[in-house]
Amino acid sequence: MKKQPDMYRFHHRSLSGNDYLPDSFLYTDPKTGSLLQVERDEEYITHRYGHGKELQNYFDSLRYGPMRRNYPNNSGVWMWRDFILPEFPLEAIISLNEGQTDPFEIPEWFGKEIGLKRLFIKMEGQSPSESFKDRGMPVAISDALRLQMEYPSLGIKGVSCASTGDTSAAAAIYAAYRRDKLSCVVLVPNKNISPAQLFQAMAHGAKVISIDHENGFDACMKLVQQFSAQHPELVLVNSKNDMRLVGQETIGLEIIQDFDWQAPDWISIPVGNGGNLSALMIGLLRAKEHGLIDRLPRIIAAQSEKADTLVRWQESGYSDYAPGVFSSTVASAMNINDPVSFPRIRNLLTYFEVEFVRVTEENLQDTWARFMSVGANICPQTAVSLNAVLQLREKNKIKEDDTVVAINTASGIKFSESGVAYHMAGFGGENKPKFSNPYIVCEGNLEAVERAYLG
Amino acid sequence: MKKQPDMYRFHHRSLSGNDYLPDSFLYTDPKTGSLLQVERDEEYITHRYGHGKELQNYFDSLRYGPMRRNYPNNSGVWMWRDFILPEFPLEAIISLNEGQTDPFEIPEWFGKEIGLKRLFIKMEGQSPSESFKDRGMPVAISDALRLQMEYPSLGIKGVSCASTGDTSAAAAIYAAYRRDKLSCVVLVPNKNISPAQLFQAMAHGAKVISIDHENGFDACMKLVQQFSAQHPELVLVNSKNDMRLVGQETIGLEIIQDFDWQAPDWISIPVGNGGNLSALMIGLLRAKEHGLIDRLPRIIAAQSEKADTLVRWQESGYSDYAPGVFSSTVASAMNINDPVSFPRIRNLLTYFEVEFVRVTEENLQDTWARFMSVGANICPQTAVSLNAVLQLREKNKIKEDDTVVAINTASGIKFSESGVAYHMAGFGGENKPKFSNPYIVCEGNLEAVERAYLG
Repeated sequence: MKKQPDMYRFHHRSLSGNDYLPDSFLYTDPKTGSLLQVERDEEYITHRYGHGKELQNYFDSLRYGPMRRNYPNNSGVWMWRDFILPEFPLEAIISLNEGQTDPFEIPEWFGKEIGLKRLFIKMEGQSPSESFKDRGMPVAISDALRLQMEYPSLGIKGVSCASTGDTSAAAAIYAAYRRDKLSCVVLVPNKNISPAQLFQAMAHGAKVISIDHENGFDACMKLVQQFSAQHPELVLVNSKNDMRLVGQETIGLEIIQDFDWQAPDWISIPVGNGGNLSALMIGLLRAKEHGLIDRLPRIIAAQSEKADTLVRWQESGYSDYAPGVFSSTVASAMNINDPVSFPRIRNLLTYFEVEFVRVTEENLQDTWARFMSVGANICPQTAVSLNAVLQLREKNKIKEDDTVVAINTASGIKFSESGVAYHMAGFGGENKPKFSNPYIVCEGNLEAVERAYLG
Repeated sequence: MKKQPDMYRFHHRSLSGNDYLPDSFLYTDPKTGSLLQVERDEEYITHRYGHGKELQNYFDSLRYGPMRRNYPNNSGVWMWRDFILPEFPLEAIISLNEGQTDPFEIPEWFGKEIGLKRLFIKMEGQSPSESFKDRGMPVAISDALRLQMEYPSLGIKGVSCASTGDTSAAAAIYAAYRRDKLSCVVLVPNKNISPAQLFQAMAHGAKVISIDHENGFDACMKLVQQFSAQHPELVLVNSKNDMRLVGQETIGLEIIQDFDWQAPDWISIPVGNGGNLSALMIGLLRAKEHGLIDRLPRIIAAQSEKADTLVRWQESGYSDYAPGVFSSTVASAMNINDPVSFPRIRNLLTYFEVEFVRVTEENLQDTWARFMSVGANICPQTAVSLNAVLQLREKNKIKEDDTVVAINTASGIKFSESGVAYHMAGFGGENKPKFSNPYIVCEGNLEAVERAYLG
């Protein structure tokens, strides 16, 4: 049964204030070109599911009760469907059981070493394509399926995106599950993508176009927008797509539920295109408005020194937004100099206390190795946000007893080559890596093994 | 408070029938050299937690109730502690929130393509070190910690193992979390380990000794046993270690709980050293004895043609056990010719209907690519078990309506290099890969992208 577009309890609103019903694909406001965000019928949510304690109990029943067995509550994205997209049709939902990831608590002995009693790492690498993109992407791709099902005249046939690796992997895996209905085209930078991430896009059946251009991801991003303009049959699922942000909101919702509806003191997040940061803030703001939490956490927005546009913007007193130029970093997934969600972030800063922190290449690699060595399977981008935590702890902005949650955006295994290089060869310059642990090649006899063990 | 060894409600029993209290580390029966298995006080379990429906309700309350929030119930291993190791001390438990992995249901359209209505893949790659080893390893390593804590005179300082990749990654990550108490030494074959797996062991702080020997894993296995004999301070955590099997039992328990205490018709599992297969069978047998299920599933034990010792053993009428010789395969993690758990498996065959199935190198690679392309993030070893399912379906041993669960033993991302090679270069011989999807390198302009898209 086809829904009338005004039966949905959500719609698109642009930053310039124009409203659009969800009956076609819009990447930006067709009148002004400005970014879109999804507006929800907040009163409807309160009316149907309650406010505060009642709403908390409802979502606890989905995650910590027998209802968890019911599809799609085993998804940490879709169990929030009544909050993020009220009345979204169940039959358009694509779920691979994403989210409901674990908060990794650093061991007590290590907490003493770094002077933090309650540091948690939210393990977003445990999702199907092993990154945090598995929150926003199922929503964007399900929405492409919804538009195809409910508005056949749009002629939607698939999705496309540009990516430094995690986005294309996520787009490919969700489109793969409904390959009977949706194709997938991805543009990736030819040199700055890890072999694992390249493998993921190919393996999950996307058409992978590897762009040979010195501007890396930023060049891919421009090209895919031009390409997309010529192909209305392909929904563009980069993070300008506001349905991506809607799914991404669940990271904040899940964290506050992990902590039994107490906001942590700090949430630290690595920033590339800014989509995750804006979604985190929108999700938390809405949670507070609905009485799920009674205060907002402070936010740490961490960037690599190689792509630090937002840190420089803050340093300029929020006056000078100047995209940097491409330069290589091990944190390749956040190597983005012109974050598309910048206008969203600027608007959200009114509500939040945000620390923008810059992390050097050597610090990020050492921090990556250090946290891996205590049993956290994290990616280099996450190391940027963890190093930011260490910096703020050193300045005593973060106190020893504060509850801090750092969001791990992907599995470390996606970046094995960079990791092996660190352990075996260091930085390649004069400075020595602080936490390297090279393997030892050894002949196949007991004496040689003993020598290797003692050596 | 130190426990008297007879206060534990479990102990070691060798296949030759000798019993040992859990107050020291035993790798095999010190009197006969035969394998050990952990015996539980089954009556105690029934007395404390009930039988049948009552026991089901107890474990459902831990997984699908508010108790899930309580440590360590968020672990799919330790939530079963009262069943697998009654009275194991909570303070010795090391948990990284392993298990409680998702059963991936293949999409309907793909089910039609392969003639199977209910095929599920149990996504064991979603655990901390991204393999099924994260079930047995936390138990073996926690037990090393227990022995260190309760029997200091044993002088236990750490753990060691030989590995084709997944085992060393798991040993390293669990020891890393308690690096204040436990060190870790791993022996890996110098050539037959994926870069991702090598990275994991280094990154998680193990001492990695890479053995240069033509017999690959089998040579490492022999060496580590000799090495271990000289180092009583290191607990050997290879799959002869019966505490590994105890944790591994939870894979079967979790599957039957996933299906609301109905055993599926078939469970398919890739077989390397045979530890996982024996643990699966032990767990299911005990589940039936305790009334958690009322029938046993049939088992599919799948092997690569390059390491097919058990298939040949079945073909010989279970009379001729003849370990094969080393030969390279993409399914490197199951490239084991003399499975250490063979005596356990032989004993368990009395209770189960088991199909041993051989899979060719080309079929395993094609099957890997085929299932990745529908959105399942699986490893080559899993493709062996999936191809075995397809073979049995073709012979109509498996019926269209049967419920089949294939155990995915690790994330596909660990094997990216092999995957990229398949998609870009095929098998290297005359035969063409059936599901390859190579990427296209393209200049950085719109016309070139259009050509790549259409071409």
